[in-house]
Amino acid sequence: MIKILIDCFGGDRSPQAQVEGALMALEANSDLHLILTGDEAILRRCLEGRRYDSSRLEIVHAPEVIGCDEKPTDAIRLKRNSSMIKAMIMLRDEDDIAAMVSTGSTGALVTGALVRLGRIPGVIRPAFCPILPTMNGSIVGICDSGANVTVTAAHLRQFAIMASLYMENVFGIERPRTALLNVGKEAEKGDDIRQEAYRLLQETPCVNFVGNMESRDLLSGAYDVVVTDGFSGNVLVKTTEGTALELLKKIKKDIYSRTLYKAGALLMKRMFREEKEFMNYQNYGGSVLLGVEKVVVKGHGSSNAVAVCKCIEQAYRMEVSRLGGKIADEIARYEHFEE
Amino acid sequence: MIKILIDCFGGDRSPQAQVEGALMALEANSDLHLILTGDEAILRRCLEGRRYDSSRLEIVHAPEVIGCDEKPTDAIRLKRNSSMIKAMIMLRDEDDIAAMVSTGSTGALVTGALVRLGRIPGVIRPAFCPILPTMNGSIVGICDSGANVTVTAAHLRQFAIMASLYMENVFGIERPRTALLNVGKEAEKGDDIRQEAYRLLQETPCVNFVGNMESRDLLSGAYDVVVTDGFSGNVLVKTTEGTALELLKKIKKDIYSRTLYKAGALLMKRMFREEKEFMNYQNYGGSVLLGVEKVVVKGHGSSNAVAVCKCIEQAYRMEVSRLGGKIADEIARYEHFEE
Repeated sequence: MIKILIDCFGGDRSPQAQVEGALMALEANSDLHLILTGDEAILRRCLEGRRYDSSRLEIVHAPEVIGCDEKPTDAIRLKRNSSMIKAMIMLRDEDDIAAMVSTGSTGALVTGALVRLGRIPGVIRPAFCPILPTMNGSIVGICDSGANVTVTAAHLRQFAIMASLYMENVFGIERPRTALLNVGKEAEKGDDIRQEAYRLLQETPCVNFVGNMESRDLLSGAYDVVVTDGFSGNVLVKTTEGTALELLKKIKKDIYSRTLYKAGALLMKRMFREEKEFMNYQNYGGSVLLGVEKVVVKGHGSSNAVAVCKCIEQAYRMEVSRLGGKIADEIARYEHFEE
Repeated sequence: MIKILIDCFGGDRSPQAQVEGALMALEANSDLHLILTGDEAILRRCLEGRRYDSSRLEIVHAPEVIGCDEKPTDAIRLKRNSSMIKAMIMLRDEDDIAAMVSTGSTGALVTGALVRLGRIPGVIRPAFCPILPTMNGSIVGICDSGANVTVTAAHLRQFAIMASLYMENVFGIERPRTALLNVGKEAEKGDDIRQEAYRLLQETPCVNFVGNMESRDLLSGAYDVVVTDGFSGNVLVKTTEGTALELLKKIKKDIYSRTLYKAGALLMKRMFREEKEFMNYQNYGGSVLLGVEKVVVKGHGSSNAVAVCKCIEQAYRMEVSRLGGKIADEIARYEHFEE
């Protein structure tokens, strides 16, 4: 039985989406056991009249909620009875719990995970790895996307190792094509950190390093993993998301400007809905925090039930594939570099 | 008379687009005098049979071309007879020449400008400022987008001053709303450089500083200037460009997948063409190198004649508005900070 905690509050559609997503995941995976954290009375009300295997669903009462604008360090110190921190403490203390899923404050989740959960032996800095869809139907993982605003070349190499193992073990991508985000393709591009990382990655056989990538090629489908610092990774992910949404919004507005376009769009209704779904990052699962001892999956704040269910299944696959152990083994082979 | 040099080679559509764009700009601006650099015989052939005011168009023979894959430092040292470096030396040496426009290698252009042209007094680091269209029809300038992969807070403040003056003087945007690119809105987000820059920008009255901006809001129309280091600025610009192009390409492909969609798209043909034009960054002019003594405008490598003409007119407006002097005056007021 795989035990996973669900932080049921702090998201835009909490706790309905979390409860609904949990029931979907329970239904689909018979060896899954879920523990919901949050206000017990509210959670019970959400479950009323629903059919599910109650032997595989627990509720742990945690009435407080961490808001998105709270200072992470204060939140994790002062709100020990919040749905997020309660889950994190249980994850740390109970050996048979494998993972937690949260759609709450990213800052509190990262800070909490770094303070309360241990790192995988040898890992210097845990890092986020969200997934984006590419235009040829494949997916690409971006690591780091915000946990570390400054990095060294050794950190970047570890991000590459962790993200490659993640894409291979959780998404079945063999020898993921791994690139370093840079301002040009040539080896000498970028600052000293990038140039040094380029050299290190060339000397890392377990990473299928294919060179530098310019950000305009992110969605081309030519890459499976992109490695970068958390600042530019954050810019990369949010710009992609923002541009796609803004462009689709503009097209919609323009359609309404002329009757002719409205007529045309009527014929293409299904296509436009599919494009929107295609660019909806929720559909590709959450962003995992690679490098911490136990599995932590961060879902988008606006996650619906399907998105929450996908996050749970992602955490499940991470545990089943024993990703943490594989990361520890591979990192150990390069530990002498990491001073 | 405003004299501007056009580097006619090194772009994807050279030299036809350059010559054509020059003739368009000459026609539209009676006090413009243009000097084309490049292989004279080829340029003469392009001009054959065309009607134009020959007293305002010169050709300077420069038979070499700098390729996009050449090492910038070698190129500017060894190819003194190239269309780009010849133009740059003339720009430096001849007082009555105001500006140059190039669609050639960005690396060579930046390195050449930094080595051969002086900086405006007080400016620590010149920086690129390209323009993107926003979804409500306004434009936004991003500074720096690639000239400086590492920066200090003092640099970022200067970028804000230069880009604000540029957007105000060349595009008529009053008190441009200027934001710092960051991983979140709060003042304490980002690394030490970002936090220090936030403080400095709050203490800079000539900049209308509106706080941090997350990259997903770039195209919202809420900002006129975005300030950042050249690495993340490069990621920001190229990701926006790449996502928009890839998404439009995907929509086109999907349209061809079903007859129904093809029928719908037929009615919307004009709209799709307009969306494509809207997201075509060439239509908004080139990227200017702010902070060098004379005006340098870099057009997109794939610039067509209209795009070249827009770059020329941009250089013209920079000179007419005496932007360089205004930058020097404003920077001088904060010079004591720049140690």
